[in-house]
Amino acid sequence: MRILVLGGDGYLGWPTALHLSARGHEVAIADSFVRRNYDFEMGTESLVPIRSLRQRVRTWELASGLHIETFVGDLTEAEFVYSVIGDFAPETIVHFAEQRSAPYSMIDRHHAVYTQTNNVVGTLNLIYAIAELDRSIHLVKLGTMGEYGIPNIDIEEGFIEITHKGRTDVLPYPKQAGSFYHLSKVHDSHNIMFCCKIWGLRATDLNQGVVYGTITDEVALDEALINRFDYDEVFGTVLNRYCVEAAVGMPLTVYGKGGQTRGFLDLRDTVRCIEIAVLNPAGRGEFRVFNQFTEQFTVLQLAEMVQAAGRELGLEVRVEHIPDPRVEAEEHYYNAKHSKLIELGLKPHLLSDSLLDSLMNIALRYRDRIDASKMMPQVNWRNARNARRPGASAEVAASGPQLTAVGANEERTK
Amino acid sequence: MRILVLGGDGYLGWPTALHLSARGHEVAIADSFVRRNYDFEMGTESLVPIRSLRQRVRTWELASGLHIETFVGDLTEAEFVYSVIGDFAPETIVHFAEQRSAPYSMIDRHHAVYTQTNNVVGTLNLIYAIAELDRSIHLVKLGTMGEYGIPNIDIEEGFIEITHKGRTDVLPYPKQAGSFYHLSKVHDSHNIMFCCKIWGLRATDLNQGVVYGTITDEVALDEALINRFDYDEVFGTVLNRYCVEAAVGMPLTVYGKGGQTRGFLDLRDTVRCIEIAVLNPAGRGEFRVFNQFTEQFTVLQLAEMVQAAGRELGLEVRVEHIPDPRVEAEEHYYNAKHSKLIELGLKPHLLSDSLLDSLMNIALRYRDRIDASKMMPQVNWRNARNARRPGASAEVAASGPQLTAVGANEERTK
Repeated sequence: MRILVLGGDGYLGWPTALHLSARGHEVAIADSFVRRNYDFEMGTESLVPIRSLRQRVRTWELASGLHIETFVGDLTEAEFVYSVIGDFAPETIVHFAEQRSAPYSMIDRHHAVYTQTNNVVGTLNLIYAIAELDRSIHLVKLGTMGEYGIPNIDIEEGFIEITHKGRTDVLPYPKQAGSFYHLSKVHDSHNIMFCCKIWGLRATDLNQGVVYGTITDEVALDEALINRFDYDEVFGTVLNRYCVEAAVGMPLTVYGKGGQTRGFLDLRDTVRCIEIAVLNPAGRGEFRVFNQFTEQFTVLQLAEMVQAAGRELGLEVRVEHIPDPRVEAEEHYYNAKHSKLIELGLKPHLLSDSLLDSLMNIALRYRDRIDASKMMPQVNWRNARNARRPGASAEVAASGPQLTAVGANEERTK
Repeated sequence: MRILVLGGDGYLGWPTALHLSARGHEVAIADSFVRRNYDFEMGTESLVPIRSLRQRVRTWELASGLHIETFVGDLTEAEFVYSVIGDFAPETIVHFAEQRSAPYSMIDRHHAVYTQTNNVVGTLNLIYAIAELDRSIHLVKLGTMGEYGIPNIDIEEGFIEITHKGRTDVLPYPKQAGSFYHLSKVHDSHNIMFCCKIWGLRATDLNQGVVYGTITDEVALDEALINRFDYDEVFGTVLNRYCVEAAVGMPLTVYGKGGQTRGFLDLRDTVRCIEIAVLNPAGRGEFRVFNQFTEQFTVLQLAEMVQAAGRELGLEVRVEHIPDPRVEAEEHYYNAKHSKLIELGLKPHLLSDSLLDSLMNIALRYRDRIDASKMMPQVNWRNARNARRPGASAEVAASGPQLTAVGANEERTK
């Protein structure tokens, strides 16, 4: 199958492109390298050193004999989108090409507006190009479990049957996103659902949980294929950050009480989920949603698992509760369905098995590259403007005057 | 009270500004005049000739002795937003300043992207300015009943209690908007709800039905105060268009079967609803939603009412069913709650009473200004690109090759 991977130079896009190429598909990557630019802006860096996309695809070609075509450009430029789709003529488009950090979107007005326009306009250009060039293309779009928020009822996969005053309908699951980034994905979902209806497009929205890990079979083939691994407060996901903190002897930074429950999955399951969605396309006019995660944990449970794993490696690991920079319930009900991908054949990797293998040892191997000043949160949801100063301590940001000024984390807006 | 009316030169903004001024509030208007520019782009014009904002406020000052301050600029320019709010220091902001035509948003990619970025970025700039300058400001935001779509269950006011697998929660009402314009309002609603939660902002989202009429007590005071009245296929709302069609002896253009049911309200009720929302502000951190309409009708019922009203005036009025340019169910269940504004004191004007007074006679009075080529739909939802050619007949647009190519109007995407 001809598959175009948008954002194919990124944390999830790159291993996905390799995985699909290894499975015999004709793969092309489009990327603007804006993710690499965010690192320059934030003063951050992948824990593991990554090569240029050009070096990556050359290495892949030498290692596997398989060619990956590349296109350099930005989805917010419609001409680029139309020309790539026209040139490569994909049957499936996997769309990772969005700004994907919640803290980045919450820095200030500029970053909020950037995140929403970048993500929404890029996706609008994409669905218009599909509508105008080839309505049979299957769009596989990365959403997020964060679109649902934390309702006090079970989370279904995209839609929920509601019986109300004696009548019943199946409606889009209500959305309560918790950052301007997560909201951008909510906006995308509504836009794409509408286009499936009016233009008969076919789309799969993968509401993904928090991904951990950095290794897949393919990126492990050669050091020049290695994938990025982010641990900083802005782009690092929680488990990656914990492992790095453990590796340098810092306390694990649990936000608030740590009862925040989320869905998680191994990077190796991400690439497999994408493959499953690609091989089992949505029908014409169908907008379907899969919840893409394998296990639920609280962020405190994760910290305790990292603590235990550290002990096995002879590391002394402390857990520290710091003020939650986000506005979110720190203890709550959470039960999200995630059976559609399992039914289509996903065999999950469990965290308990992979924690030592693919996480702790990566953090230890690259320990010398860890910048310990990057872990403490400097973006506080309660501030409309956050100054991210090099070397500013977490205490400054987290105990600022506005931290408790507005609302408490247990409050819910109705 | 100090009230800033954004979009105060428009169809709803202008009569609202006058109404609030007449009630003794200190009113300022901000407007970019982009609505007047859409007329140049579309080759359309208000049925009734309207004056410049400068002439309007001067006339109002002479007629009433009341001053309305004006600011000229665009909400997508953050500096403008911050400076207006800083200068005028409003206690309430009424926000009409969005591109508000569904067909305009469906012309092509450019108009879809424009509508969503204009509306979403303008509103983001506004809520950031409130968060940074004065979190006590009450935001009264115009939403639309079109955010809900046409679910097969009763529509509630913003939120719905859902019992699911033995647990219960009150969640945002699911959204199924039917155009990129309506979707832009869905995006706004999600963004504003989030900001009420994290920053303790206070907001009222008025999900308004389709407005008809052009006269209020205040605009009737002087011909230079008169309000715009749109009847063209892009900016004209359905009842206004019917009345104009009747006035020139054209058949009333009912889209499809005409069973499309929507909520409607008189312009005089719009200005009163805004006043009610302003006088009864949301609490700190509260995001509340009022459904702002007074009566439900099918578009065929409206046509029959206009036909009957025409007969009383000696006009022969035919009703014609033309292919529906929109992708929407042409017969469906619809029952939307609208009691919150009534409970706060709204006394609705009923369509049956005002049809002859404030609609048919306006259309007849300005009959010579009617451009009969502007009523037939040229924007077909099924096309990703609609060429709006001067003088193109509706048949060309409505019976184009893609009209029946994708889906049927009775289908619903799940």
